[in-house]
Amino acid sequence: METPYTLLDGKEINRQMREEIKAEVEKMVAEGHKSPRLIAVLVGHDGGSETYVHNKMITCEACGIRSETLRFEADITEEELLKEVAKLNADDDLDGFIVQLPLPKHIDAQKVIEAIDPRKDVDGFHPTNVGKLSIGLPGFVSATPFGICELLRRYNISTDGKHVVVLGRSDIVGKPVAQLLLHKDNPGNATVTVCHSHTKDIAFYTRHADVIIAALGQPHFVKADMVKEGAVVIDVGTTRVPDASRAKGFRLCGDVDFDNVAPKCSYITPVPGGVGPMTIIALLHNTLLAARRNRGLEK
Amino acid sequence: METPYTLLDGKEINRQMREEIKAEVEKMVAEGHKSPRLIAVLVGHDGGSETYVHNKMITCEACGIRSETLRFEADITEEELLKEVAKLNADDDLDGFIVQLPLPKHIDAQKVIEAIDPRKDVDGFHPTNVGKLSIGLPGFVSATPFGICELLRRYNISTDGKHVVVLGRSDIVGKPVAQLLLHKDNPGNATVTVCHSHTKDIAFYTRHADVIIAALGQPHFVKADMVKEGAVVIDVGTTRVPDASRAKGFRLCGDVDFDNVAPKCSYITPVPGGVGPMTIIALLHNTLLAARRNRGLEK
Repeated sequence: METPYTLLDGKEINRQMREEIKAEVEKMVAEGHKSPRLIAVLVGHDGGSETYVHNKMITCEACGIRSETLRFEADITEEELLKEVAKLNADDDLDGFIVQLPLPKHIDAQKVIEAIDPRKDVDGFHPTNVGKLSIGLPGFVSATPFGICELLRRYNISTDGKHVVVLGRSDIVGKPVAQLLLHKDNPGNATVTVCHSHTKDIAFYTRHADVIIAALGQPHFVKADMVKEGAVVIDVGTTRVPDASRAKGFRLCGDVDFDNVAPKCSYITPVPGGVGPMTIIALLHNTLLAARRNRGLEK
Repeated sequence: METPYTLLDGKEINRQMREEIKAEVEKMVAEGHKSPRLIAVLVGHDGGSETYVHNKMITCEACGIRSETLRFEADITEEELLKEVAKLNADDDLDGFIVQLPLPKHIDAQKVIEAIDPRKDVDGFHPTNVGKLSIGLPGFVSATPFGICELLRRYNISTDGKHVVVLGRSDIVGKPVAQLLLHKDNPGNATVTVCHSHTKDIAFYTRHADVIIAALGQPHFVKADMVKEGAVVIDVGTTRVPDASRAKGFRLCGDVDFDNVAPKCSYITPVPGGVGPMTIIALLHNTLLAARRNRGLEK
């Protein structure tokens, strides 16, 4: 017997949240404050990065966030880039900025991230923000963990007392989302297990999970027999699989064998259209938050 | 049939490590460098804090670390204390300092912690160091997680591919030790589950655990029937239980029902004498590390 499942529609939540953020920006401006201002630093001409930054900027702009892309050629030195970061840190009219990754190999990306003023680090990658996320202090939560938690929140999926199994221990997904779901918060209060490449018998954990967050980057890793009836499944995987039938020559493939897993789930994210559209919302949310803090409207 | 178990002797490892640190300090001085210098800031006259700071200072001093206690009365204002922190941050001859907690209620302890230069934060409580621990960047690891990992390391207990169940999600034990054991490191590479007050059926997790780290602060919470044969059990609990037969009127009671659990274990920490003596080593280790970084001897 198949359980009817609900799709966690990231596209729809993205649309709702953009409207909410736009309304908040308008309110802020109507109350006499400057609108939030964001800069994206783009080094070189990587096709993927160009697209990502372009999409981020037009989405922000559409919500009333003043947004610019600051471009540098791929041969900029680390020293020069650090100077530019210092200038952005010192710009009082700038609420937040991001440095689009990856950076050219001659630049130490970690050094650049650590040079960003944590109060302007709307990507949430600075160690200070990673630490604040861990402790539960107000900072900036990075895109994917933010997107996952917001999806759970918007669909009223409680994780309180639930067993959440996170597949993958990356610094940008697995580790921070595990931390967030441990907090005394909603979502939160979960028993959290983090599995990864060294885990023996991953299925033992996933079969017991009330919520599975799959972020391994291995297409269709999670099969139906690894999932409990009624589980919530969040698929963070977005591997590009060659597909001649698509205009781009590839399709995005999640970590979950959706067709076979979905019938067992209470809720499941599609790929694409699940976690993906939620990640850009983090940038809007964080930029608005930075602006509210800078204008004394929020702690 | 009872398995013979090995005691994880924190006292003995503490003794060994103090000697190693003393030798390293002597070598540093013999090579023409200044010895490490540490200050403990003590506000008020709390009996427990007085004892802790005293013990820390004499242990550091015995290892050749220049150590002082800087005392302030309990009525020091937050502003004054923050000014003192700023002075310590600016003192180029000072490698590290700690502000002993708890602070009087009129002072925001988190604000004071965040005012400490992360490079001098040898307690490892600053969000930047918490974040660096999470990402696996060089910073300062706080006392208890450091002590637990060092015990495992010194007894050659691998956690690679093992299921580690952490009981407790505090910012100073549960969460950071879970992060450390997820790293691609030794100890590390573990599958980690964090349980806490909201977990349903904690015994389900502990019975499957290869390693249990108990940090709930509930005397004798972990019973024999919750532990797998051959498990490694690390007891972080140190609850004071009234005991008229002791000179102090209390004894320290761990989270583990030692007498009944120990026969099932491969390794187990005693309480006291297990994790406790390891925590002070973190302060020595971190102060030496800070000094080595300041003298260009380490990254």
